[in-house]
Amino acid sequence: MTRNQGRTTFSSEDFLKEVCWGEDGLIAAVAQDAGTGRVLTVAWMNREALKQSVERGEAVYWSRARKRLWRKGEESGHVQKIVELRLDCDADAVLLQVEQAGGIACHTGHERCFFRKLENGRWVSTDPVLKDPKLIYGK
Amino acid sequence: MTRNQGRTTFSSEDFLKEVCWGEDGLIAAVAQDAGTGRVLTVAWMNREALKQSVERGEAVYWSRARKRLWRKGEESGHVQKIVELRLDCDADAVLLQVEQAGGIACHTGHERCFFRKLENGRWVSTDPVLKDPKLIYGK
Repeated sequence: MTRNQGRTTFSSEDFLKEVCWGEDGLIAAVAQDAGTGRVLTVAWMNREALKQSVERGEAVYWSRARKRLWRKGEESGHVQKIVELRLDCDADAVLLQVEQAGGIACHTGHERCFFRKLENGRWVSTDPVLKDPKLIYGK
Repeated sequence: MTRNQGRTTFSSEDFLKEVCWGEDGLIAAVAQDAGTGRVLTVAWMNREALKQSVERGEAVYWSRARKRLWRKGEESGHVQKIVELRLDCDADAVLLQVEQAGGIACHTGHERCFFRKLENGRWVSTDPVLKDPKLIYGK
């Protein structure tokens, strides 16, 4: 925050300073479908990912597997348009209300990553595959 | 899983083997209000926390700050009764549908930990404090 000719202005990065990044530089990022309320994905953001998410208005994560920024939907087209962004009490997790392009958030072709439910001591897949992953990523 | 006299039985801990614990032994655990669909908390579980959560039917987390198991509500009474438990595609996050005792999930006295919203580049508190934390924890 800076003062300029008597006016208080906010740099576009001030909100990043309030975030408590973990030792690995990351925070958890939960994406929830703004329409249905379904929790779609849990992913990770570093400072640059959160910055770009806000600038673009679309979810950008840090891929822990690939160790690089990951513009959600960059390959699949399954972009998450951010409708609302929230920070939790200890500032180490964000909640995104999103519009999920294609109605598919998961790389497996399911609507959401949480397609398995615990039933009688076992994880049981309860949701249909909406699109064959080969067709999503088959280039 | 073991076979006993021709029947396939599942030990109560088989579901734990499918979880991909992080290098720190933890996974992310998102709790969502089963009634309203609001995301209440993001916390952490180790193997024992998930095991106890399933056994008790109430959320048990691993407190990274206190470095011990934390039966949610053990001090506040704000227990999270688990209605449904889901695992994500890469098995490193769980989603709990819960009934939130007292209607307060956050130690700040808010309904949910995500009481701050990004507005014009600033995190703005949008939700009321439902109960003074001093009254929640004041013993």
